[in-house]
Formats: sequence, C-alpha cells, structure tokens
Amino acid sequence: MKTGDLMARRQRALAPFHYHMFERPLHIVRGEGVWLWDADGRKYLDCYNNVPSVGHAHPRIVAAMSTQAAQLNTHTRYLHEGIVTLAERLLARLPDGIDTSAFVCTGSEANDLALQMARLFTGAEGVVVYDGAYHGNTALTLAASPSEYPPAERPEWLAVLEAPNLYRGAVLRDDPAPGQALLARAVAALDALEARGQRIGCLLLDCAWDSNGPLLAPVDYVQGLCAEIRARGGLIVCDEVQAGYCRMGAQWWGFQRYGITPDIVTCGKPMGAGHPVAAVFMRRDIAERMAAHQVYFNTFGGNPVSAAVANAVIDVIEDEGLMDNSARTGAYFLAALQELQARHPVIGDIQGVGLFHGLDMVRDAGTKAPFGRADMARLGNLIAQEGVITGTSGRHGQTLKLRPPLVFAPHDADLAVQAIDRALASFSPQEGRRA
Amino acid sequence: MKTGDLMARRQRALAPFHYHMFERPLHIVRGEGVWLWDADGRKYLDCYNNVPSVGHAHPRIVAAMSTQAAQLNTHTRYLHEGIVTLAERLLARLPDGIDTSAFVCTGSEANDLALQMARLFTGAEGVVVYDGAYHGNTALTLAASPSEYPPAERPEWLAVLEAPNLYRGAVLRDDPAPGQALLARAVAALDALEARGQRIGCLLLDCAWDSNGPLLAPVDYVQGLCAEIRARGGLIVCDEVQAGYCRMGAQWWGFQRYGITPDIVTCGKPMGAGHPVAAVFMRRDIAERMAAHQVYFNTFGGNPVSAAVANAVIDVIEDEGLMDNSARTGAYFLAALQELQARHPVIGDIQGVGLFHGLDMVRDAGTKAPFGRADMARLGNLIAQEGVITGTSGRHGQTLKLRPPLVFAPHDADLAVQAIDRALASFSPQEGRRA
Repeated sequence: MKTGDLMARRQRALAPFHYHMFERPLHIVRGEGVWLWDADGRKYLDCYNNVPSVGHAHPRIVAAMSTQAAQLNTHTRYLHEGIVTLAERLLARLPDGIDTSAFVCTGSEANDLALQMARLFTGAEGVVVYDGAYHGNTALTLAASPSEYPPAERPEWLAVLEAPNLYRGAVLRDDPAPGQALLARAVAALDALEARGQRIGCLLLDCAWDSNGPLLAPVDYVQGLCAEIRARGGLIVCDEVQAGYCRMGAQWWGFQRYGITPDIVTCGKPMGAGHPVAAVFMRRDIAERMAAHQVYFNTFGGNPVSAAVANAVIDVIEDEGLMDNSARTGAYFLAALQELQARHPVIGDIQGVGLFHGLDMVRDAGTKAPFGRADMARLGNLIAQEGVITGTSGRHGQTLKLRPPLVFAPHDADLAVQAIDRALASFSPQEGRRA
Repeated sequence: MKTGDLMARRQRALAPFHYHMFERPLHIVRGEGVWLWDADGRKYLDCYNNVPSVGHAHPRIVAAMSTQAAQLNTHTRYLHEGIVTLAERLLARLPDGIDTSAFVCTGSEANDLALQMARLFTGAEGVVVYDGAYHGNTALTLAASPSEYPPAERPEWLAVLEAPNLYRGAVLRDDPAPGQALLARAVAALDALEARGQRIGCLLLDCAWDSNGPLLAPVDYVQGLCAEIRARGGLIVCDEVQAGYCRMGAQWWGFQRYGITPDIVTCGKPMGAGHPVAAVFMRRDIAERMAAHQVYFNTFGGNPVSAAVANAVIDVIEDEGLMDNSARTGAYFLAALQELQARHPVIGDIQGVGLFHGLDMVRDAGTKAPFGRADMARLGNLIAQEGVITGTSGRHGQTLKLRPPLVFAPHDADLAVQAIDRALASFSPQEGRRA
C-alpha cells in the first residue's frame, strides 16, 4: 500500500476531524520500545507518545493480552479476579481515604464520570479548569476543555484559571512571591464564578498542565488553591491521564509532587500501554452517593483483557524500574536540553520533570515572542526528518513537547538532543518577520 | 481464589455501582463459543451476551489482536491501513450518503459524539428518545437515557416517547391501525417539546428497543416518525449498538428492517467481540460542520489493534455465515419459544427477531400483570442453575431477554428452551399475591 494512495483512501472514508500530524503524514507500520518504523523502513525515535507507556509492542503486554483473550473476555457483571487485583494494586498507590475504584475505557469517560460524581456529591455544578486544559471529548468533558472551542461558548458553570506559566504568564518566576500572586488571581476567578450564582462542584486539575506546557507550578500555589476550593465546598479531582503513571519522575502520581490529597483521581492513556482502559478512584462516600442515585455500567470497562493488560503494565513498570528511570533519565535529558538551550537562544525556556519536558520556542529571547504555529510545524517536520518524533503544546502552540515512553534511556536522550540540535542549526523562524 | 473471598475483596475495592448479576454472582473463568465455565468447572450456555458477538474467545479474534499488538499500536494521528480498511468495509454496508466514519472506544462515546454533531449541525438542542432507552453512561448520553434516573430530573430538551410495545402499551396489536395510533402519540410528544420552546436536533433510535424489550414496531410508525422528525428539522440517529451487526437476522443493521435511512449511525458492543471499539458513521456535511467548529480526537479510537480486531469480527461474520445463522437459528429459536409459551401461560408474549428474543412474563395472562423484579431475579437464578445464562429487560423488568452470541446453533436453542422449561415447571411467582 503506497502512502499517497492510503492517504487518499483515508480522506475519503474518515471524518475530517480525524486529523493527522506532520506535513507529510507518517505512515507507521511497526514499533518496538522507543522506536517506530514507517512503510519505507525509516526508523524514528519516539519522543512524543506517552500512551505506549512501557514502550511499543512490549512482549509482556502482548502476552498478557493474548493469554487472557484466549481464555475469557466478559464484563464486570460477573466476578473476575483480574479487575479486583488491578483495583487493589492501584488503590495501594493512592492516599488513604481514596479506597474505591471504577473502571472505564478512556480518560474522557473517566473525567466525565468524575464530574458527574462531583456534581452529585456536592450538589454544585461549577467546574474550575485551566485556560489551555483538555480533559476529554464527551460533551461534558469537552465543555470543561477551554482549549478546544471558541471562548464565547464557555458555559456559565465554568471558571477558567490562567495556567501557572512562570515564564510567560501574568506572574513570573522572579516575582517576590509567585505562588501567592497566582493564588490571588485564582481566587478572583473563583469569586467571579460564585458572583454569577454558581457554586463550585470541583477543581479539575492536571498536575502537568500538559496542554499548556508541561508547566511546573509553585507548590504553595497548588496547595493554596486546593484549600480555597475545599473551603468553598468543592472537591479536588486530579486528572492523572498525563501526569500519572511515573510520567513526572520519582512518584506514581503527578499530584504527589504538590503534596495535595485529591478526592477523586482519574487515569487513562498510559494505563494499558495503548489498550483502551481507564479508571476513576475516589472516596467511598462519593461512590455511594452515585450508587444511591443511579445505575452506572460500562460494558468494556475493567473487562478481563483490559485488567490483564493493565496489570501487566504495572508489572513491567515495577520489574523494569521505570519510575526510577523516569526520574534518572528525565534528569539526564533535562541537563542535556539545558546545554542545548545555551547554544540556541530560540529555546526561551524549559519546563518539565521526569520524562516530560517542554521547550518554549521564541523568536526573540528578550520579548519572548513565541514561534508561530507554521514555524512550529516546520520545526517538527525538520526534527522528524532527523529521525525523532516530537509534539507541540502551549497557549500559542509554541512549546516543543518531549514525552517519550518510560523505557527511554540516556542514550535515547542523546539522540533526541542531537536531532533537535541539527534541526535548529538549519532553522530560522519565518513568521512575525517584517516583510 | 475462592468465590466468596473474591466477592469480599471486590466489594472493598470496587465502587458499589459496579453491580453484578445473579443472587450468587457467577465467577466465570473461561469461555468458548456459546459456553462459559465458572471457577468450580460448571458449564453455562450463554443466552445473554451480545458483546462476544462471534462467540467467546474466538481464535481468529485472538490471533488478529495478538499479531497486531506485537507489531504496532498507536493512534489515528499517523496513517495506518487497518482503520481505513475497516471504515471502507463498514461504509460499504451503509446506505449511500452515509460516507464518513469516526472511530471511538465505546457505544457511549459514539452516541455522545453523535449527539454533539447533531446539535452542531442543526443548531437545535432537542433530543427525542424512548421511555426505557439506555444510550450511554456519559453525562449527555445518560441524560438521554430515561431508564437510568428519576423522571423528575429529565432535562427540558428531552422528549420521551412511549416505546411501541404492542403487547402492553397504550396501542395494542389488534388496534385497527396501530402504526398510525402510535404515530399520533409520538407527534403529540414532539409538539409538547416544541411548545416548551425547544427545537428538535435529533431522534436517537434503537431499532430493537433493547431496554424496553426487544420490541417489534409497525413499519409505518417508524417511517412516519422519521418523516416527522425530518420535517421539524431534526436528524435521525440510529443507535445500532444493540440492533446492528446481524443481531436482528438477515440484515447487517436494525434500521434496515424498517426501511429508513438515518443521517448518523452509531455502533459499539459487538464490533470488537469484547474489545473496546466503537464508531460513528455520518453524512460528510455533518462531519464537516464538526471539523469546522472544533478539534475532536479520541486517543484509543480506531487504533491499529482495535481496527485489526474489528476487521477480524467482520471476517468471521462473513466466513462463518453468521448473518444467515442469525436469521435461521433465530427463526428456529422463536418457533421453539412459541411452543414453550403454549405450555406455560406465564409467558404472556414473545417479541424479537434474529438472535434477539424477549419473553414478557405475566402473573395473569388476562390482566397481563407483569412478574415483579424479585420474581424475575428468582427465575433468572433458577435458569442459571439449569445451566443457561439469560438477562432481563422491559419497563417493569418483566422481560426475560435472550440474546446469545451469533454462533448460537439450533441445538443450543433446544438446550436453552429445555432449561427454561424445567425452570418454569418448578416456578410460581410470589409477588403480587394476596397475603
């Protein structure tokens, strides 16, 4: 199958909102570990995909999936040990008090269920999110994702906070007390929501601020915000789809970095290394309120194959020491990126931790004028031509996002930095220039 | 692992809304074709599960899944042939005009996306559903599922039609023109919605009326209703999660039975024989409206493994002649159930077609007083003790639902009928008796 023909067939058969990445779409046919191969046999280092968390086509994941599928794949209306073991293993990694789990298929379903539960439990409809947030594709989670639709359509129950970007936000790293300054701005947004007659049901918090960054926020800000939300009757829902599963280095969950204790935790993408499995963890009283009100059933959620795969992912993370790798290789990667930044002033800022870093690309280091989207696309294509797959993020799409599978090794970090170095050497931004 | 211990662990770790079926929950550990085995080695004929559409643990499905998982599992932002081939094969089975597809993970996500698209395209929020309908577990699809929550909480944009049950509805089979009488009642409900200031975005229609039955409606009613919806500016969304994939005999989709042409078609459960894969098919102009308005991405939707599994399901249906089997074995099953009804007056009515039948259980054939829920539970347990797994449905929970995998053979139908016969021989309803 030629790539051009396949592209034409795809454009005919699939919805136009099924978009693809890169100018010349990648036609990937095989994966292994941190490597992907296209139809022409070209090899790419994967610096973008967090979903194949333990590496592409990991043999233990494939074996777990195949073995269970050959045996049984039903649903949670019968007893099965797989889902119970999975629930116990993940609950053991969560703070005391979060003792109850529900399994679904996607992060969108997880966040949708979390918002439903938070609203039922508090009796309050208000949801607090960040300006660049993406929390899912269902009608409700999409409404809670201000990055995805025109600001004029924001529902009145939504409070939108400015993401805590200390490099280019309203509060900067060298402010005397950035955490408190950020908190004052957040409090004003909460006040505005309440002034509209809305009560706060929950804060929906991605501790990596993935689609804004990643960002690293002041700890006192995050703790202060959670206290404010609680004082106003709201729950803390941590969306760990991005930040969880050792993505941010030496802890299983992103919220642990900030020393906060959520009421509800959702996770998705990395849980099944590509298999559609996701979950919601919560206090039992929150789950009981839901059970008293309505039926909830998820046909595929936590089925025996999904549970086998998700258990195998935890096995691999444990046996291959991937939490430690995320911290160590992540620190090595960051140091190498900082060295790169010293040679390339277009890298305005680097934020991130563990195996999740963002390079904020600027046309001018003084004004911090961001790269435009066309330049970022061109840069991404150049880096891909150098054999490395990256992504973009950030309010202006100006952040080069580096978020490889957790099996990424220091040698892979070297390769990635060298490729970005070569791409930047031949690159100059075109947008924003005087004609 | 003892079943009792496992149950206790499950109750501790899982949310109480993850309910199980049967008084003594079944602890199923293995499946093959139409058979399930519990932890004690007891064997059950599966007369309930439509999700393992081509039979439990079908070796071709397992092989397709394993082979693809060992090769690659990414997402739709890169080109991959599997999803394109899958889209083409399913679009070829749909009416002209429905030429565009989107892949998601669950029927809930499919219906949620369909409702979002219908609302965007028509600019109208109103949704028309049936009283017993279940269309999903997201906030939006749950609101469109009146079976799942208290009637007082129905949103004002929802019009709820009475399901066309010609045995126990307001319009009966022996009315002079049941289709027209049903239509008049539906029109009144649409008028009431519009009188509330709501415009109709779509009808969300399950052509099996699964959670009300299954039911068989008059063709002129369904056609007339669709014409009414269109005349008022609404789209026809067929939810084929239950009725599609040859469930209703000699056609791929349930709506074909009624000679209607939908604008959007959703499917889920049977598509992946247990693997979480689902889809939305639509007219291109509807997809284009969505693409112009917003981003839509579904991380796991249509990934290479999901596509491989869904393609294998179509292969098996074709190669094993399962559409024909659904029609033939379904007719054989129905005849045997009708013979059973002649001997058991508690079977008030039988509705269904293909491999989807419902027995409406009555305490009194004259008054049609339905079995209560406790009696239905007791009956289901008795039939399970006889080695056959069934389900319940219906407005009062009074319908014994028979909806086996599509590989169900005439011999299996005999076994099922014999088991129900034995259970009924020792059964008398307790509820509704004078004390």
